[in-house]
Amino acid sequence: MKPDESRTVYDGKLVDVVVERWGEQEREIVEHPGAVAIVAVDEEEKAVLVRQLREPARKELLEIPAGTIDAGEEPLATAQRELAEETGLRGGRWQHAASFWTTPGFCRELMHVFFAEGVEEGERSPEDDEEIELVRVPVAEIADRLGELEDAKTLAGLLLYLRSRGL
Amino acid sequence: MKPDESRTVYDGKLVDVVVERWGEQEREIVEHPGAVAIVAVDEEEKAVLVRQLREPARKELLEIPAGTIDAGEEPLATAQRELAEETGLRGGRWQHAASFWTTPGFCRELMHVFFAEGVEEGERSPEDDEEIELVRVPVAEIADRLGELEDAKTLAGLLLYLRSRGL
Repeated sequence: MKPDESRTVYDGKLVDVVVERWGEQEREIVEHPGAVAIVAVDEEEKAVLVRQLREPARKELLEIPAGTIDAGEEPLATAQRELAEETGLRGGRWQHAASFWTTPGFCRELMHVFFAEGVEEGERSPEDDEEIELVRVPVAEIADRLGELEDAKTLAGLLLYLRSRGL
Repeated sequence: MKPDESRTVYDGKLVDVVVERWGEQEREIVEHPGAVAIVAVDEEEKAVLVRQLREPARKELLEIPAGTIDAGEEPLATAQRELAEETGLRGGRWQHAASFWTTPGFCRELMHVFFAEGVEEGERSPEDDEEIELVRVPVAEIADRLGELEDAKTLAGLLLYLRSRGL
């Protein structure tokens, strides 16, 4: 399925906005290169989350590690790179858990979620503008802390993970 | 928490884009009025989902009913209005389930999810540009159909609902 016409109406740094014509409808769509997020669980059965200021929310949010796909990059490669950069975690057993649109009414961001179990500590190398606190939550305590989670990918990812473990 | 400066760089129909300065960082942020989504379950224990073309995804997606908050509207009122318009369902027992940011790295969309149980059939009044197919899924079968769901709010909302029911 493709639009009849498309024109760029905003050309930004991270996002662009296009207006597409689909038959008689015009749709305003935020373009995005796609993203990944990782439910990372270490050898001590702790999920590694990140807490950081999210300016769009105007508050700090507790999230699973995530990042934007670079041009031409495979989602799994992005996920392994972003997890290492943000948290230092490496290795482990990886599997694709789900891919979903974050907000498909107006935005072309497809999010790929991976589970990474048995990940090991390493050195972090966050980007200059990222101030990220690591928060380790025992897997057995996640279900009691769902109320703290205010991010869609984090809720979906952790709920899928709990279900995969029968928790 | 607030930015030091903000300027609008794109003024669209549904979304605007602003650039905010937070200290030394500039952030490009998609503004959005916020949204609601509803896990609606009828008296026959069927969840009522909607299937529609989502142009940003360039495919049809199966989702829980949802909509955008009008200026000044309470999220619960939006949810009850949108559910009635899209599906004809009315009444029932409502509760707030969760509120989360759909993609907080670059977008100011806060999504409020409600559970509505025991809803009853009524007349639909979808907007002109909405072609929406209703899909009723027995609650007991949702867990087997999670792989069909490619929308963040739908996964998060249904997984929270299953958990609330011990399913």
